[in-house]
Amino acid sequence: MGPFFKIIKRSQKSNARVGKIYTEHGTVDTPVFMPVATQGTVKTQFVRDLYENDVQMLCLNAYHLYLRPGMDIIGKAGGIHKFMNFDKPILSDSGGFQVFSLADLREISRDGVTFRSHIDGSSHEFTPEKVMDIEKGLGVDIKTCFDECISWPAPYNTAKVSVERTTEWAKRCKNTVNSQQLTVNSNQPLFGIVQGSTYLDLRKQSAEQLIDIEFDGYAIGGICCGEPKELSLEVVSNLCSILPDDKPRYLMGVGLPEDLLEYTKLGIDMFDCVTPTRDGRTGTLFTEKGKFAIKNSIYKDDFRPIDNSCSCYACKNYSRAYIRHLFNAGEMLGPALGTLHNIHFFIKKMQEIRKGIIENLI
Amino acid sequence: MGPFFKIIKRSQKSNARVGKIYTEHGTVDTPVFMPVATQGTVKTQFVRDLYENDVQMLCLNAYHLYLRPGMDIIGKAGGIHKFMNFDKPILSDSGGFQVFSLADLREISRDGVTFRSHIDGSSHEFTPEKVMDIEKGLGVDIKTCFDECISWPAPYNTAKVSVERTTEWAKRCKNTVNSQQLTVNSNQPLFGIVQGSTYLDLRKQSAEQLIDIEFDGYAIGGICCGEPKELSLEVVSNLCSILPDDKPRYLMGVGLPEDLLEYTKLGIDMFDCVTPTRDGRTGTLFTEKGKFAIKNSIYKDDFRPIDNSCSCYACKNYSRAYIRHLFNAGEMLGPALGTLHNIHFFIKKMQEIRKGIIENLI
Repeated sequence: MGPFFKIIKRSQKSNARVGKIYTEHGTVDTPVFMPVATQGTVKTQFVRDLYENDVQMLCLNAYHLYLRPGMDIIGKAGGIHKFMNFDKPILSDSGGFQVFSLADLREISRDGVTFRSHIDGSSHEFTPEKVMDIEKGLGVDIKTCFDECISWPAPYNTAKVSVERTTEWAKRCKNTVNSQQLTVNSNQPLFGIVQGSTYLDLRKQSAEQLIDIEFDGYAIGGICCGEPKELSLEVVSNLCSILPDDKPRYLMGVGLPEDLLEYTKLGIDMFDCVTPTRDGRTGTLFTEKGKFAIKNSIYKDDFRPIDNSCSCYACKNYSRAYIRHLFNAGEMLGPALGTLHNIHFFIKKMQEIRKGIIENLI
Repeated sequence: MGPFFKIIKRSQKSNARVGKIYTEHGTVDTPVFMPVATQGTVKTQFVRDLYENDVQMLCLNAYHLYLRPGMDIIGKAGGIHKFMNFDKPILSDSGGFQVFSLADLREISRDGVTFRSHIDGSSHEFTPEKVMDIEKGLGVDIKTCFDECISWPAPYNTAKVSVERTTEWAKRCKNTVNSQQLTVNSNQPLFGIVQGSTYLDLRKQSAEQLIDIEFDGYAIGGICCGEPKELSLEVVSNLCSILPDDKPRYLMGVGLPEDLLEYTKLGIDMFDCVTPTRDGRTGTLFTEKGKFAIKNSIYKDDFRPIDNSCSCYACKNYSRAYIRHLFNAGEMLGPALGTLHNIHFFIKKMQEIRKGIIENLI
């Protein structure tokens, strides 16, 4: 088996790097933006549209898919790639964030978390071992550890306890993975998730402890949870100097187009965010000149495409006036076109960033 | 200008016929099924999907489009084809049915109808002259007269009055059209709409009066409004013996796959119905072996396509289990795939019917 990650170019202007992630479902150029397919679908999009938009990799959610449709069905389908008919790399979020934010929590213990489903109130338990089994069952190309997410701001001691628990759970995840017999996907690298809120010493501790366990890559959790941007940048900048240079660094849940550029410059290689899909679905559309709300009445007779410089299916075929009509009339085609366009915009942004790094412009 | 309609084959087994309708936006093979694009969009479908499904012609609604986005915007767009980016023939329903079923009616007079919009309660008046202006403004390839629709069952006298009004309005529609200067589409044939509920003598009266006025084609309204199937068949069969043989006959709002075959045999050339789109959107999917509800739990681990013999994008790419998951999880991709499949099924049905007529099998 060849390497999992290879850096092919470092910027002479920043800590940005262009690399490649090798998976059983193909190679990914980094830095990469992953649209989210939370429930096993990028909302409103045909797989064909994702391919046409040059989407390289998706991010989906173990918590959601475990609850619905359930691992039995995904197992029978032969894994999540076959179930959703997406033949490129997929990363799974362990669902730590969802367990702590969506579920009706019963109890957190050293062993794991007991919670009630946000869908039907049924009772479930997530332990690190169980989550590793779920992610294995999904058959994804990159797994992430089960971590404890806390909200921001958090008292120092709360953050400290969550780091300790996250480290302990990370060890158990690694041990579980080491003993797994993989069936669906013969190579399922595991990422540790750094926690520690905005306390630099806790972030350092978390990162170092995870590095000791040795993961295939490192994710940074708990960023963009409401804290000021300067704090996020400081935390990420610090972590990029601690995390191994030769492993991919994944900033979870980030971000806006401008974030992609800023964090790439610090040395981040992977991003995921609901922004392009959620905004696209609700009518906030991104362009080279900034974003705008298509429902605004000033677009009612604007027959230009969403973005003149865009070559996506929505921009090549439909006007702002028409898309506004769709949104106003409650037509599902509106959210589908908005999502398609926004994904195209984010993917293109990332392509430009990779080009900029190669040319030492970023 | 060549002919508008030409019959190219008559079945030796029934009154079915295969023909061609010539429009500025291309030729349509009849009998034809028109998916509905009520608000200027076939709900959930990209135009690309309509083309791939061999949709020949769409049916949309003057009442809905007049209220939203409004004729001003459609006019500025250069007509409805450009607004919705659909480059094939389009027929407009005058909106008679919607005015009488959806709007909050104020008053029906000999002159027209005053009503309040179902969207915002604003007050509007539809007269035959105004509706002809609206349909002209849409720039459709076939217009229909403004008629009075009544519900079923209706007392004889109610039906009689509605026939008289429909005839009078049809005359005014024809006169208006004769004096119109067409700009968007140089050829906009006008269809009369036969009313008369299930009273055969009133249907005959309505048809004969419309034939006297001379239309480019004849639509049959008020069928499949709750009356028993035998009555509908009797009415349509009678009308097909009265309506001119050399003009297209359009059965409005019909129907199910089996209806398409039965009414084609009586001599009907055109159909429109919400069934494939509405059912597709709510999870009732058509197959060669009948329709089924995809949400049913028996499909939870059924990894076959919706219909084994179907070559649509949904069947070639996704399983019943996955589509069921989408519907259960409230994912818009479910309705989009269901709609795409059902449209494909109805269009294919109609292709088979045309082939059957040519081979004298139908």
